[in-house]
Amino acid sequence: MNERYIFGIDLGGTTAKLGLFGGKGVLLEKWRIPTDIRDKGKNILPDLAASVREHLNAKQLKAENVTGIGLGVPGEVLNEKTVEPCVNLNGWGGFDVAGAFSRLCGVSVKAINDANAAALGELWRGSAKGAQSMYFVAIGTGLGAALVISGQIVEGFHGAGGEIGHIIMHTEEARAFGRGKRGRLEQYVSASGLVRSAALLLEGTDEPSLLRQYDEVTAKRIFTHAKQGDVLACQLTEQFASELGQALAGISCVCDPEVIVLGGGVSAAGDYLLNAVQKAYKLYAPVATENTTIRLATLGNDAGIYGAARLMMNKGHTLR
Amino acid sequence: MNERYIFGIDLGGTTAKLGLFGGKGVLLEKWRIPTDIRDKGKNILPDLAASVREHLNAKQLKAENVTGIGLGVPGEVLNEKTVEPCVNLNGWGGFDVAGAFSRLCGVSVKAINDANAAALGELWRGSAKGAQSMYFVAIGTGLGAALVISGQIVEGFHGAGGEIGHIIMHTEEARAFGRGKRGRLEQYVSASGLVRSAALLLEGTDEPSLLRQYDEVTAKRIFTHAKQGDVLACQLTEQFASELGQALAGISCVCDPEVIVLGGGVSAAGDYLLNAVQKAYKLYAPVATENTTIRLATLGNDAGIYGAARLMMNKGHTLR
Repeated sequence: MNERYIFGIDLGGTTAKLGLFGGKGVLLEKWRIPTDIRDKGKNILPDLAASVREHLNAKQLKAENVTGIGLGVPGEVLNEKTVEPCVNLNGWGGFDVAGAFSRLCGVSVKAINDANAAALGELWRGSAKGAQSMYFVAIGTGLGAALVISGQIVEGFHGAGGEIGHIIMHTEEARAFGRGKRGRLEQYVSASGLVRSAALLLEGTDEPSLLRQYDEVTAKRIFTHAKQGDVLACQLTEQFASELGQALAGISCVCDPEVIVLGGGVSAAGDYLLNAVQKAYKLYAPVATENTTIRLATLGNDAGIYGAARLMMNKGHTLR
Repeated sequence: MNERYIFGIDLGGTTAKLGLFGGKGVLLEKWRIPTDIRDKGKNILPDLAASVREHLNAKQLKAENVTGIGLGVPGEVLNEKTVEPCVNLNGWGGFDVAGAFSRLCGVSVKAINDANAAALGELWRGSAKGAQSMYFVAIGTGLGAALVISGQIVEGFHGAGGEIGHIIMHTEEARAFGRGKRGRLEQYVSASGLVRSAALLLEGTDEPSLLRQYDEVTAKRIFTHAKQGDVLACQLTEQFASELGQALAGISCVCDPEVIVLGGGVSAAGDYLLNAVQKAYKLYAPVATENTTIRLATLGNDAGIYGAARLMMNKGHTLR
């Protein structure tokens, strides 16, 4: 029993995904447990610890067989320990989560922001395998991102490296959108932003569109009908891709990553989205970085557990 | 004679600045030699090597007393060796400059982009002393920049980390400006950009301005008269600060540095510029990074030789 094991955990607002990795980083098993966010999430860590112990027992493993646990969380993380209060977890956080979880499990723990974990996962086993630097963009309901330099996550001084959703794209934007400043990238590039743009567009014109058949227009439906050539849907996805391409070109000016990876639920729009973003990127990028590789993420929902495990294997640490 | 010495060189288009540093990084002596860019700069390295030798001889030092030479150059550098052809040096470059200079001097050499060198200098002995991460912005005739993470320069995959002058700020910009795409930050935030904006503004209105007295309006004159309250000059510097503040807020979203430093000739506008940029920054930055420190550079023209020497001391290397 010389093999050493690692757990990778991706703690989300509804469920937590857990993965058990063998010594060479092979994913041996993965499973989910529900996230209990009642009482400010006081059961979150005990529930996770119980699940970890259960799986150790089932495999007749002890704590000393485990190198450690990487724990991805939906919030800002400082020094791989302290997690800022997480909106999606009912305000859970504001303490040394890694330390507390380590005491519960009896093994060492490192905490990591979930977008950062997904980025590390893609870098290790996914779309950016072999790259030294990358910019990972997670387009879901909101917009998250992560910067990797020299194979390490850049947390940022305030734990805010990768807050690209807050880049102001249009100072003249008159409409407010969610929490954050007007005209920020997330207002245009996110599932919620796209749906909002669709509502405004459909209201403002009489032009027919297949999107009018739905009570609820979703990002997925917009991309589906854009692929079918629906004029208004195309207009929406083109604006989406153009804003994102312009922002990515700006990112290349700031830190010139080797590869840019598009992940998150909206990236399921696939090559249609990728091609449009690449086209817009080229339009706005300086010559030196015009050919930066832009790819779709490949690990899907498993990116987070891979990345959390990788952090634990990595001996190194995140950069600031 | 146990002390080890380091040379820091800042190679510019007109002159090269050289500095001799003692073992503990104390600047012992600094001097300049002219840069001879004739014949595609074939004399550049021999001239520098002769000057290095001359100063070693004067101090009765040998190559074995020297740890190495850090060489800052006005162009992109890959792997601290290869320098891309430099516009300001008549196309000189396109080869392993560090290797060639090392053979001429008999000591090890590392090459570094000049903006990166200035950033390292400020980090080591200047305005960002003690910081782990910084974004350095050099506002001169053009606009350069450098990213430092974990105390190391981020070169970027194409050697283009810090190309913020190429961030597209206004996709709708109709006027071309120098080399690069329309509407890029450099078009508004640089000495040449500011002068251009002034010409357009003065042409487009009959409003009186102290700026009208000059045959040649310079960035310095614009800031001088703005400080005196000249309405058009104020309008110009406010737009300048607003564009820069917005871009810096975007940079914080991308990599969240601990400190942002404004250097280059235009930063001589001092607190007047700094205050305006800080105000604009706050307007556009997300809450998490609203209080990022923004400072003026303090080493002036010596930043480059300090930084080049630091690279050589640093044992480490630049990040990609």
